[in-house]
Amino acid sequence: MNQTYYYVNDRFVPAEEAMLHVSDLALQRGYGIFDFFKTLNGHPVCLEDHLERFYQSAAAMRLDPGKSKEELRTVLYSLMEKNRITDSGIKITLTGGYSANGYSLGTPNLVITQQAVHLNHAFDQTGIRLMAYPHLRQLPAVKTTDYLMAIWLQPYIAQNKADDVLYHQNGILTETPRANIFFITQNNTILTPQHNILQGITRKQVLSLVNNKFEVMIRDISLQETELAKEAFITSTTKQVLPVVSIDGKQIGNGKPGAITEAIYQLLIQSQYGLEYKP
Amino acid sequence: MNQTYYYVNDRFVPAEEAMLHVSDLALQRGYGIFDFFKTLNGHPVCLEDHLERFYQSAAAMRLDPGKSKEELRTVLYSLMEKNRITDSGIKITLTGGYSANGYSLGTPNLVITQQAVHLNHAFDQTGIRLMAYPHLRQLPAVKTTDYLMAIWLQPYIAQNKADDVLYHQNGILTETPRANIFFITQNNTILTPQHNILQGITRKQVLSLVNNKFEVMIRDISLQETELAKEAFITSTTKQVLPVVSIDGKQIGNGKPGAITEAIYQLLIQSQYGLEYKP
Repeated sequence: MNQTYYYVNDRFVPAEEAMLHVSDLALQRGYGIFDFFKTLNGHPVCLEDHLERFYQSAAAMRLDPGKSKEELRTVLYSLMEKNRITDSGIKITLTGGYSANGYSLGTPNLVITQQAVHLNHAFDQTGIRLMAYPHLRQLPAVKTTDYLMAIWLQPYIAQNKADDVLYHQNGILTETPRANIFFITQNNTILTPQHNILQGITRKQVLSLVNNKFEVMIRDISLQETELAKEAFITSTTKQVLPVVSIDGKQIGNGKPGAITEAIYQLLIQSQYGLEYKP
Repeated sequence: MNQTYYYVNDRFVPAEEAMLHVSDLALQRGYGIFDFFKTLNGHPVCLEDHLERFYQSAAAMRLDPGKSKEELRTVLYSLMEKNRITDSGIKITLTGGYSANGYSLGTPNLVITQQAVHLNHAFDQTGIRLMAYPHLRQLPAVKTTDYLMAIWLQPYIAQNKADDVLYHQNGILTETPRANIFFITQNNTILTPQHNILQGITRKQVLSLVNNKFEVMIRDISLQETELAKEAFITSTTKQVLPVVSIDGKQIGNGKPGAITEAIYQLLIQSQYGLEYKP
């Protein structure tokens, strides 16, 4: 197996040697942001959107990446060239840095990792079950490293015979910990939450792809209202378009992945994989 | 200056060499807990209370410290012996460990650091100003590493001419990011919040010290109600008993540190410093 490299501050290092000092503020105080994109056949997908969001998250948290977008892009291409992983996930993390007093921001640490990912190359015919849970992420528009609640909930999700959690606040849905959610109504309108969400790059792409084909409404959606939906799905860089078949044990539509969801999956796959893709 | 040692997993290492791999789940996903105690004249203060809370936090987050309380205590005394820092803060951090997929718990990493602290050895005659802010910590009873909001708020605290933030939920006060809060009413009753707080060790000690001297009520306290208070103060391991003179610019009582607060400070200092303390 080839040596995988990571990037820490200004150096490419063998993955197993990528270390940070324990005084880092992400480790000590949960203060950090990241972004994550995939490569398909060695090509980054929606890199510019991810870079733009990364710099937005950094600014919102007052973290200076220490590099221009151009410099960072060059580092990313160098890393891809070094590692040559065909289908991969690349994560760019920026932390609060080494803090002398354990509380005040230091100079941010920049960490870039790359790992092989195995994506679904066919539409998922099973779908996933969600469990609703009242929680609002801190600074929901920012891609912070705060997944405390998501990880803490893992055994409760399993106990509730679900695959993932769907957050809501006072009954208004927001998102799953790592994906955006969409619903299709009985009259084929596509709905997705408007407030208190992370602006997903795949969400943006899906909205663009369905724009001229379906009526789309971006608005508050209540938990109760989901019982009337015909189909549902979540979107993320690695989940792509993944059907949701139940929420809190109540099935969505006929409890099976839906035809419109599958059509949207195909639109996304065609758009992302393009002509270069050979399954 | 003497070499300071930290402890990482099973090894004492020079402080500057205390590193964790970037795949650690505290760094990647904000999943970790800690506890923090002080030493005075080389002696740990309330160590057993801190150890008990550390093991409670670990259990609540399903993190196995990998050591019994006895073994951990032995490590702590060895570290104090190695470093010989008279007045210090010792932080025990336990993380979600190295996670292969960046999401599932690994074997927790245990990190212990020790640093000199400079404590107020006299009652603070200035006091601090608080700014109220609506926020509820995730899992408030658990001492997690989640201080994202506290650090994010720092510039807004300064803009509001305050020294720290006081969290509330729907107008019911909870705590400051690193301390518990107390109020003294016009008829000398001592009030402190009951719900959604971290059970501070200094809070517990103060409650025990005032128990036979004052009427004490542990109950919900509204932000509005604080305008009627005669005195206020916060408690923590390093802040000890620190007077609060205003909230959102409205002065508490006459806007100066109060006599009862000072009496409680003296009780705490006498109890913690004992006969060994020579200022």
